Amino acid sequence: MTRLTHLDADGAAQMVDVSAKAVTMREAIAKGRISMSPEAAAAIRDGLVKKGDVLAVARVAGIMGAKKTSDLIPLCHPLPLSSVSIDLDLDATGVNATATARTTGQTGVEMEALTAVSIALLTVYDMAKAIDKAMEIGAVRLMSKTGGKSGDYRA
Amino acid sequence: MTRLTHLDADGAAQMVDVSAKAVTMREAIAKGRISMSPEAAAAIRDGLVKKGDVLAVARVAGIMGAKKTSDLIPLCHPLPLSSVSIDLDLDATGVNATATARTTGQTGVEMEALTAVSIALLTVYDMAKAIDKAMEIGAVRLMSKTGGKSGDYRA
Amino acid sequence: MTRLTHLDADGAAQMVDVSAKAVTMREAIAKGRISMSPEAAAAIRDGLVKKGDVLAVARVAGIMGAKKTSDLIPLCHPLPLSSVSIDLDLDATGVNATATARTTGQTGVEMEALTAVSIALLTVYDMAKAIDKAMEIGAVRLMSKTGGKSGDYRA
Amino acid sequence: MTRLTHLDADGAAQMVDVSAKAVTMREAIAKGRISMSPEAAAAIRDGLVKKGDVLAVARVAGIMGAKKTSDLIPLCHPLPLSSVSIDLDLDATGVNATATARTTGQTGVEMEALTAVSIALLTVYDMAKAIDKAMEIGAVRLMSKTGGKSGDYRA
Amino acid sequence: MTRLTHLDADGAAQMVDVSAKAVTMREAIAKGRISMSPEAAAAIRDGLVKKGDVLAVARVAGIMGAKKTSDLIPLCHPLPLSSVSIDLDLDATGVNATATARTTGQTGVEMEALTAVSIALLTVYDMAKAIDKAMEIGAVRLMSKTGGKSGDYRA
Amino acid sequence: MTRLTHLDADGAAQMVDVSAKAVTMREAIAKGRISMSPEAAAAIRDGLVKKGDVLAVARVAGIMGAKKTSDLIPLCHPLPLSSVSIDLDLDATGVNATATARTTGQTGVEMEALTAVSIALLTVYDMAKAIDKAMEIGAVRLMSKTGGKSGDYRA
Repeated sequence: MTRLTHLDADGAAQMVDVSAKAVTMREAIAKGRISMSPEAAAAIRDGLVKKGDVLAVARVAGIMGAKKTSDLIPLCHPLPLSSVSIDLDLDATGVNATATARTTGQTGVEMEALTAVSIALLTVYDMAKAIDKAMEIGAVRLMSKTGGKSGDYRA
Repeated sequence: MTRLTHLDADGAAQMVDVSAKAVTMREAIAKGRISMSPEAAAAIRDGLVKKGDVLAVARVAGIMGAKKTSDLIPLCHPLPLSSVSIDLDLDATGVNATATARTTGQTGVEMEALTAVSIALLTVYDMAKAIDKAMEIGAVRLMSKTGGKSGDYRA
Repeated sequence: MTRLTHLDADGAAQMVDVSAKAVTMREAIAKGRISMSPEAAAAIRDGLVKKGDVLAVARVAGIMGAKKTSDLIPLCHPLPLSSVSIDLDLDATGVNATATARTTGQTGVEMEALTAVSIALLTVYDMAKAIDKAMEIGAVRLMSKTGGKSGDYRA
Repeated sequence: MTRLTHLDADGAAQMVDVSAKAVTMREAIAKGRISMSPEAAAAIRDGLVKKGDVLAVARVAGIMGAKKTSDLIPLCHPLPLSSVSIDLDLDATGVNATATARTTGQTGVEMEALTAVSIALLTVYDMAKAIDKAMEIGAVRLMSKTGGKSGDYRA
Repeated sequence: MTRLTHLDADGAAQMVDVSAKAVTMREAIAKGRISMSPEAAAAIRDGLVKKGDVLAVARVAGIMGAKKTSDLIPLCHPLPLSSVSIDLDLDATGVNATATARTTGQTGVEMEALTAVSIALLTVYDMAKAIDKAMEIGAVRLMSKTGGKSGDYRA
Repeated sequence: MTRLTHLDADGAAQMVDVSAKAVTMREAIAKGRISMSPEAAAAIRDGLVKKGDVLAVARVAGIMGAKKTSDLIPLCHPLPLSSVSIDLDLDATGVNATATARTTGQTGVEMEALTAVSIALLTVYDMAKAIDKAMEIGAVRLMSKTGGKSGDYRA
């Protein structure tokens, strides 16, 4: 049976040892969506028309969240991120988020991309929750992963 | 039209002023789910049989994540959390997470509960990603909110 | 001679004991400015015309920085901030920052307001430094302080 | 017209991708000053005579602040700092701060040096504010920058 | 049999709910010691003679560590510390640390006092480890605890 | 006389410059123990029988603490940890902790291993303190250190 790499032979949690892994350029892309009422989406759009702060705040939160990944996910390795970018696309009933993370290091950046998406969408929730408490965050998943020994992945 | 409370009259982001709000006991419950292959779910279950670390790590990550909410969500107020608990329920194709957060303060704990759920599920992703990269986090939403002037909310 | 309150009788640093101080509403306003070349100011203005991210990023950084004040300034007390807002005003040769912080607590929020201004201006420096490395941050000072036993202060 | 590197083609904030940049040794030196009343400067000097904690606390705060730079400045890259040192020079009406930061990495350390200076001076403000609230932090600027493709810079 | 309060009926970790506890003034005092070679102790003493930075750095680290307690200890509640002070006493073969923490809140500050002692002593280790790697930290324990329903405690 | 490397010629604290040191694989192992009443040890053992959260929480706290080392110890360099593992061994009157940390970098990981041990044991204290406040943390020391120019060390 497949064993979880984050558990040792006794089942105790551990940070996987990456010291023997090659230092290569690695990239991961993740996506997610927050669904909301048309009224909430319109309020965000209205904010954009003025000064554009709404999605800008969510984008900054996602980028800063990506940098905190190893502080949030217990067994994640600290990584020298070489870039993070977040694309937020508002439509009539929600916001789609796409995050791209890159590093030159010994382990992948999937968790950084997924964390960026999650924190950006939670930030949208926070800013629109006075209008719509029933918003839902979903479809948070890895789209692709390149670099590293285990080979590339595409969803 | 409804205006976002986190934007001032010019559309600039701000932390809403809660200094005039009453100090009351407040609670929020949030839920979410990570869906995965039966193989990944079985590996987590196998880990549980041994020492139980898998869901324990995710639970701790969610609790610690709740305490970092105001550090992650830019316009969230820092809150003296009086309790956080996270229930993780593993089934054949995933894990359901339910987080309950409480405070006695001037503003609600929805974001703390939602952040706890998100970080706990991201931690499950991290621990099982060597087996299944196609896992998806979804249905992250607020179930209920009590306390505070705006009244109770049930999903 | 006047003694520093952050040193005990032996000169050792300490966090001043505020447990006997009254819980009152307190506010502090701080200002500062970053001076830059007309070219850098124009590039920021050009960015604003598009999507407004430049000053939005600095504003978010300042608000989040205010929440980290007690983590940055060794002898500062942790405070439940009830609001922080930052006004950034771009002119032909720089950006003026004004931060307002409020709490209901046992100690003042001068350091939170000053930290918000400093971090917001450092963020502007970061975003424009590829154009102008000679930018200078100055005039970072407290404008006013209200609430608390020691009385109000106006610069 | 010069474009800000931290904005993408649409004007959205991004962390600049440094993955193609060379890993070289880089150094940055920044300066700043806090001006104060002779009474406040004398109180700091008096503290030094005893146990020297005043400037020591500010120096530690600046060093620790430098290590938090990528957590404070949204679009800054996390960097493995190889050294930070801070020189604080007290005179009759204030304190001059000089910070030197070094790394072997893919991007410069200007922001680390500037952050170290800012946090050290804010810490001095905090410790002396009971005596003088009119202190002012200014002249925070980059003195030099070496290493990296864009060439050396001297103020 | 006595049950751990941090485990729920199923044995899952939880943050104990303190929302029904009274807000009272609470204090805790903790002690600890780092033992070292006379040579290491002499080097620290020599540093003191110059500028006093050695123990000052450890004292600052302990105070800042106390403020991070709820970020370090997973099930600890965030607390508005009203004061922390640390006394470090160097003798011929080591340093004794005593930390006093106070809050006005719903739960005790034992962990803050113990964390302050631990981080201060680890900082001494860090600064003297080039001279003596065999230093040992021990006798880290609670001396007293006052305030709160469970009554006072003296070691 | 031996001089502390963390003080400059004037006695001021500094982060030692490691930019000229070789990038090598480095490992450190540290140990420590918390002593407690048989009743407290039995309660932890009872918790283990159920769901195993007690030591799992302490293990996670130790791993996350290791990643925060440079944020806690003022003059420590930030390090890209390649692995951390913690072994916790419960006996009739306490818990022994052993932490192993590894990096490929320019400076050693002694402080990371010692911090992991300290935070794990403080977490045990926190979870059992309702049963036994007289627990004592001791024998926190470095067992071995390999890699780096200064040669290997064994206690």
